[in-house]
Order: sequence, then C-alpha cells, then structure tokens
Amino acid sequence: MGARIVIDTIGGDNGAAVCVEGAVIGLKENPDVSLILTGKKKELDRMLQEYTYDKNRLTVIDCSEEITCHDAPVEAVRTKKDSSLVVGLQQIKEGKADAFISAGSSGAVLAGAQFIVGRAKGVKRTPLAPLLPTTEGNSLLIDCGANVDAKPEVLVQFARMGSIYMQNIMGVKKPRVAIVNIGAEEEKGNALVKATFPLLKECKDINFIGSIESREIPFGKADVVLTEAFVGNVILKLYEGLSKMILKEIKGAITSTKKSKVGALLIKKSLKKTLNRFSANNKGGAPLLGLKGLVVKVHGNAKKEEIISAILQCKTFVENNVSGKIIEGLAAQDGEQ
Amino acid sequence: MGARIVIDTIGGDNGAAVCVEGAVIGLKENPDVSLILTGKKKELDRMLQEYTYDKNRLTVIDCSEEITCHDAPVEAVRTKKDSSLVVGLQQIKEGKADAFISAGSSGAVLAGAQFIVGRAKGVKRTPLAPLLPTTEGNSLLIDCGANVDAKPEVLVQFARMGSIYMQNIMGVKKPRVAIVNIGAEEEKGNALVKATFPLLKECKDINFIGSIESREIPFGKADVVLTEAFVGNVILKLYEGLSKMILKEIKGAITSTKKSKVGALLIKKSLKKTLNRFSANNKGGAPLLGLKGLVVKVHGNAKKEEIISAILQCKTFVENNVSGKIIEGLAAQDGEQ
Repeated sequence: MGARIVIDTIGGDNGAAVCVEGAVIGLKENPDVSLILTGKKKELDRMLQEYTYDKNRLTVIDCSEEITCHDAPVEAVRTKKDSSLVVGLQQIKEGKADAFISAGSSGAVLAGAQFIVGRAKGVKRTPLAPLLPTTEGNSLLIDCGANVDAKPEVLVQFARMGSIYMQNIMGVKKPRVAIVNIGAEEEKGNALVKATFPLLKECKDINFIGSIESREIPFGKADVVLTEAFVGNVILKLYEGLSKMILKEIKGAITSTKKSKVGALLIKKSLKKTLNRFSANNKGGAPLLGLKGLVVKVHGNAKKEEIISAILQCKTFVENNVSGKIIEGLAAQDGEQ
Repeated sequence: MGARIVIDTIGGDNGAAVCVEGAVIGLKENPDVSLILTGKKKELDRMLQEYTYDKNRLTVIDCSEEITCHDAPVEAVRTKKDSSLVVGLQQIKEGKADAFISAGSSGAVLAGAQFIVGRAKGVKRTPLAPLLPTTEGNSLLIDCGANVDAKPEVLVQFARMGSIYMQNIMGVKKPRVAIVNIGAEEEKGNALVKATFPLLKECKDINFIGSIESREIPFGKADVVLTEAFVGNVILKLYEGLSKMILKEIKGAITSTKKSKVGALLIKKSLKKTLNRFSANNKGGAPLLGLKGLVVKVHGNAKKEEIISAILQCKTFVENNVSGKIIEGLAAQDGEQ
C-alpha cells in the first residue's frame, strides 16, 4: 500500500480550489498514493466534478468547522473538533493516514500536531524544518517552529533528525551539519551555542562541520543549518522577505525606462528560471519532524504547485520510512550516552 | 572647532590606500573637519604626496604595530599598545579626537572601544548599530555587536539610543521602534522578547510600535529594528549574504544566453542605480553607540566611498552632539523609573 495523505482544504489564502487541483495532479503523478481531502464536502465535490481522476484513491471527509489564523491555536484545536484540521490530524492518529498537509494557521497546525498526532518515542521536541534555496541546491533549516529557548540536548536531536531527513529525502550522502553562529571560532556564540557545540562534536553519527555565519547560508555551506526556533524563524522570514524585496526593486528598476523595458523583455526567459528557484511553491512546504506520522505545513498563500510538491515529499517520506529511521537514530544515540 | 576624526589605516582588506583617498576627499567635502590617520607614517606620507589637500587639517601618527583578524581581540588590544587601533582610540580617550573609524578586526574594535574609550555615564552596554537598506530608505538595526544574551533593561536602553540616533543623524521625526519577533501578537516570542515588550510599552519617550517579523524589515516597517546581538548579527549577515547571492544568480541568469546578454546591456544603467542601494559602501559603517566618543566600524572590504560616508556620519554625529543627547536621554529615563 502506498502513502495515504490527508490534505486540509481550509485555511489557505487561495481557498480549496488550489488544494483540489493540486490533489488531482498529485494523484495522477503518483499512482501508488491515496488522498483524503478534509473540508466542505459540497464545495469540494462540485470542484472535483470538473476533473477526471481515480475515484478509488481520493476520499472527501465533510467538516462543519474551520480554524482561521484569528483563532487562538491551542484553544481552536481543543474546541473545534469538527474542523478540517482536527479531523485531518485525527486520521493520522487513528492510523487511517500517514501524512497531513495544511496551508492553515501555523500555530494551529503546530499545536494540533503535538496534541493530536503526538511525539514519536524518544523525541523531546518536534522541529519545523523547511528547505532554503542556495547556490548549491537546498539546505534544511531546523528549527523554525514553536520551540523557542530550546535546550542543547534538544538541538542535538534536531541535528540528528535533520541529517536523517537530508539523507533520505534529498539523497545527500553525509549531510554537513553546521550550527548558526556569529563567528567561525568555537569560543564565539551565545550561551546556547557554546553549550551545544561540544555536544555536537561528540556525536559520531553527525557530520558536524562547526559554526556557520548567516551570510554563508545562501551559498550552501551546510546541508543542515541548525539553530534554535527563534533565530530559525528570523532566518526563514528574512529569506522570504528580502528575496521578495530585492526582486521587486529589480523589477521596478528594469521597467523604469523605455530602453530598459526592451532589455527586460530580452532577459525575461533566462531570469524566470532563476526566480523560480526562489519561489516557495517548488519546495513542498516544511515538514514537522519527530511526530508519530508526518505533518507538512505549506505556505498560507500556497498554489497548486506547492501542494503537488508537498504530496511528493510526503510520499518519499513514507516510502523511505523516515519517521522510523528518526526513532531508530534517536534510540541508538540514547543507548550510546 | 569642527569634528576631529581618527582613521585607522591598518586592518582593512583594501589596505591604507582607500583610507588615504577617502580621507582626502572627505577633507575637501567637509571644510570644518580635521583628520588624524594612524598607521605606517612612511607609507601614508608617500600616498598623501599624490594629493593636494589642506595640510593643516590632516595629521599622521606613526604606529609600529598592527592588529589583524587573526589576533585574539582582547589580548591584542591589551598588548599591542602601539597599534594603529589602540593609538587611534587613545586619541579619543585623551580628548584629542571626537570620533574613530576602522575597517579592522570587529572583535578588536569592539574590545578596544570598551577598554580604551569606555562607556558613557549611565550606559549599561554599547550596541553596534548599522543601517539596513529598505524599500523606504534605511532602518537602524540595533544591536549586532558583542552583547549576546542581553537583559531586557539593556534592550530598552538600545531602543532609546537608536531613537536618538535616527532622529539626529537621519532626521526621522518620531522614529518607529519595533522589536524583532516571530509573530505580531504580544504573547509571542522568546523569554527575552516577552520580558522586554511591556517595558518598551511603558516608555513615553520611545515611539514603540510593537513586534516586527523579519520578513517586514526589508520593507521599512520600523525605523529602529531592536533585537539582541546574536539575532542582530544573524540578520545583518544574512542581509549581506542573501543580497549578494541573489544579485549573483541574477547576473548569471541574464548573461547566460546571447539574447539575454543584449537585454542585460540595455538594463545595465537602470539596474546599477538599484544595486548601489544595496551596496554597503554608501552606508558609512556601523556606529558603536553609548561610548565617551564615537567609534565607527566600517566593513573589512570598505572602499573609499564607505570611508567618505563614515566621515560624514561622524561629523553629523559630533555636530548634533548625539553622544550628549544619549547620555541625557538615558539619565532622564533613569530619573523617571
């Protein structure tokens, strides 16, 4: 049996339509995958009528409630039992699905994943780990989630999870792990980094290459960029905001004169390929690692392409048993200590 | 008497030549400023011979030692008494100069500023506060220096210093101060942000507008971007690294085909204006605030333009008595508490 993936169709900025279209294409591209859509059945059925697809591999579950970004996350997850988010996560808890994809409220997805799906055995905290585009390909940024002010032992677990992810999902042989720091030397850093550094050096199963300054991240100097969630969140959002700002400024500049407008037309095709690399839509969202199942948070403004990429990511994750490998990896280390 | 500014001519990647050229131009552009160059007198005199300049306003002090980025900062500042850095800072301590500019080792500049120049009255810590280019102009990022794991009261002082700086140097009327956070809501954040937030809300002399997510920084949502030094350092270096990477990728893309190369020629002029905005060279370096005098750290790879901008920054700082205003501002607040 192939991967069974739930798609939460409520909460994204672009509505259920992008989820439905992404689902239908994902189904076609991955013949062994089956999908469950949670949301407003009537609306979903009407949208689905416009496509031809394998009806045996796509189910819709009707939900009467919805969680928005205005809801208090924990409260919403606890009280809105018939929301597309809670019902979807429940499928994983009950063993009816392997993975869950949502474009809804980050806070609610993170809270729901903790409360409903729950941490896997031996996992201290569950990190959110998106891929960042670099000149060399992609690096995994771990953690950007809700674990602010994490402890050193927690960061070491994150390093291990990130390595297993990059090895199994991205096919990197010995993923280089580096900790975000404000200088290259071992004695640099804040209290957390100074306490974590020696622990990482001791781990034989982690290819720890030392500190990484944030200016080196875009140049792919590490495969796993390890940091505490507050800093990770700052890096992720600055990456997005600054890319957007620079591209906007450049677009403004090259369409500012008649002459440059002609030039803009000539470079359009070459430029588009590059800009697509910075588009969040091709990354397939950020996985929340260390759960009893996979939860993937896609961007609030995800388009069908991101849903399709997320489906592929979930399939690869399940087929490679990454969850199992993470549990094994952490257990092996616990035994070692 | 106009501002008296020391330029440390050793330690920058581009050698003493850019300092000398920048100094001569700065002297011409600012008729009330006088300059002191510290470094190798023989070499400096030889370089200076090639220019005509007001010899009454430029002095050279010969130094026999140099501090490099390979030296341990604190150790170097303590032992290399005749280095261009120590001799230059000593000028401020002895009241012979008002400001000091260096492209040398960040660590040594920060350490020297603390030990030799010293903190002004009432100042808990001295933040390094560079300007970041935004779509709206520039925002001050405070702190990127050595004060990692700072306390809430320290951040409040930084907010005050940053406001005074933006008001007096950049002419912003009521500078909007925001604290870097991982969400817009007051209950979000790590322990430090949560503890600092209410303190900032109470300050009547600070125009505190709440949290800023890093993705909003490039769009100029705040004039003073307040954060603890570790996060500030990550933001500053990611800003530099990511800008560099994106511009490099775009350049590569638009020169990849014959057609796009023609287009690239046509957009060159319009694009250059935009790219210059992201160039560090126009910002005049990062001031270290709260000292008994001004210390400005310019980039290691600073060119003459950055030296010239730094001279202008120092002049404005001294003429507006920003140091005095910071001391007054902090004292007023201490009285209030």
